[in-house]
Amino acid sequence: MSIELWYWPEIPGRGEFVRLFCEGFGIDYEDMARERGTEALVEHMHSLEGIRPFAPPYIVDEDVVIGQTAHILAYLSDKEGLGSGEPEIDLQLIQLQLDISDFVEEVHSVHHPIASELYYADQMEAAWERAQHFREQRIPKYLIHFDNALAAHGGPFSLGQQPTHVDTSLFQIMEGLDYMFPNYMKGMQGTWANLEGLQGAVPEIEGLVDYLASERRLEFNENGIFRYYEELDEQ
Amino acid sequence: MSIELWYWPEIPGRGEFVRLFCEGFGIDYEDMARERGTEALVEHMHSLEGIRPFAPPYIVDEDVVIGQTAHILAYLSDKEGLGSGEPEIDLQLIQLQLDISDFVEEVHSVHHPIASELYYADQMEAAWERAQHFREQRIPKYLIHFDNALAAHGGPFSLGQQPTHVDTSLFQIMEGLDYMFPNYMKGMQGTWANLEGLQGAVPEIEGLVDYLASERRLEFNENGIFRYYEELDEQ
Repeated sequence: MSIELWYWPEIPGRGEFVRLFCEGFGIDYEDMARERGTEALVEHMHSLEGIRPFAPPYIVDEDVVIGQTAHILAYLSDKEGLGSGEPEIDLQLIQLQLDISDFVEEVHSVHHPIASELYYADQMEAAWERAQHFREQRIPKYLIHFDNALAAHGGPFSLGQQPTHVDTSLFQIMEGLDYMFPNYMKGMQGTWANLEGLQGAVPEIEGLVDYLASERRLEFNENGIFRYYEELDEQ
Repeated sequence: MSIELWYWPEIPGRGEFVRLFCEGFGIDYEDMARERGTEALVEHMHSLEGIRPFAPPYIVDEDVVIGQTAHILAYLSDKEGLGSGEPEIDLQLIQLQLDISDFVEEVHSVHHPIASELYYADQMEAAWERAQHFREQRIPKYLIHFDNALAAHGGPFSLGQQPTHVDTSLFQIMEGLDYMFPNYMKGMQGTWANLEGLQGAVPEIEGLVDYLASERRLEFNENGIFRYYEELDEQ
């Protein structure tokens, strides 16, 4: 039986990390709200009982109903036997996936430094300040960390020749940063060589070739997490 | 063999979530940097090879070296058999623990809306604005979520009569909010009854009675995550 993925249908957002992994590793899933719409998602979310997800994305896999992107990926990877086979390594991959979640939250906060419920237009001044610090301090700190992690098993993937859930996610953050800060990322070319290598290797994963060329792959846009605002990419 | 916990020695911060769980459930741990100091922590962190933790807290348990608070707690709970015995429930508890991590990150960002590397004093205006939204929107949104989760198995703990890693963490965020926003939390008394019940029940867990009265229990302070600034608690 295919798993149900529930996520906002019009942005790549956090749901895309789950989609990329499922598509890349042949996991059968149904992208429920893409077919049924936002209202169906909200209704479904409210219909859940017991310990509920805080927010989309979440998955339903028979009795299992869980939210949190990194948690979903860890669960699916474990269920499908897509890890290293060594518990202590698989635990480190989950830690990396959680580091990625933290980074994605910081990306989101660049456009929402004051409040996530306010529009970017209502917090532009603080966003501009935050973007400067984010580019100068946070991106390098995180990307060096991820670049080093890729080197740990020799690359190009997180387990050397074997890609994992970490690799599709790192690909997505590199694509997202290229969209968000094209000038900055161009200027930094060559700095994070392992991540750049990964960015070239992931689209060649068999399941992803078709997916990335299909309409299922959503483009980044200004309702999503990675957004392009020219004024935030000034050098 | 006891596990090694590595965390900044002078703040409760994220390390306290690990300490509370270990103390409450009789897990033998050594609080390495409390004994050896900050420099020893920094040295140890840099000495690690392979896929490394992004930041403290992290634990060393023989071959296992992992960071990320929620991940550490999920690992220890699983290892010690302190879950429900039902995988789909244990997965939901991990999701809740990750929701708690997200909330803690938002707490941290109240005092660091522009940049985590700047002092609060250098971003007070944005922090004041963020604190208003945080109190009005985010605290209620998260605490209703956690309050409902406690009701799912009848309370007072996340599994009814059985406490889990989620309960010591929810206790800590309630204590932290009481410290951070005493006026606000007083005004909201009775709103999140299950969480208030939990706040009374957790200190009675056998292992915690001594701990909470000991010097091992660090007080909240203005270098930590939950901070008290009078100007941010104005009604």
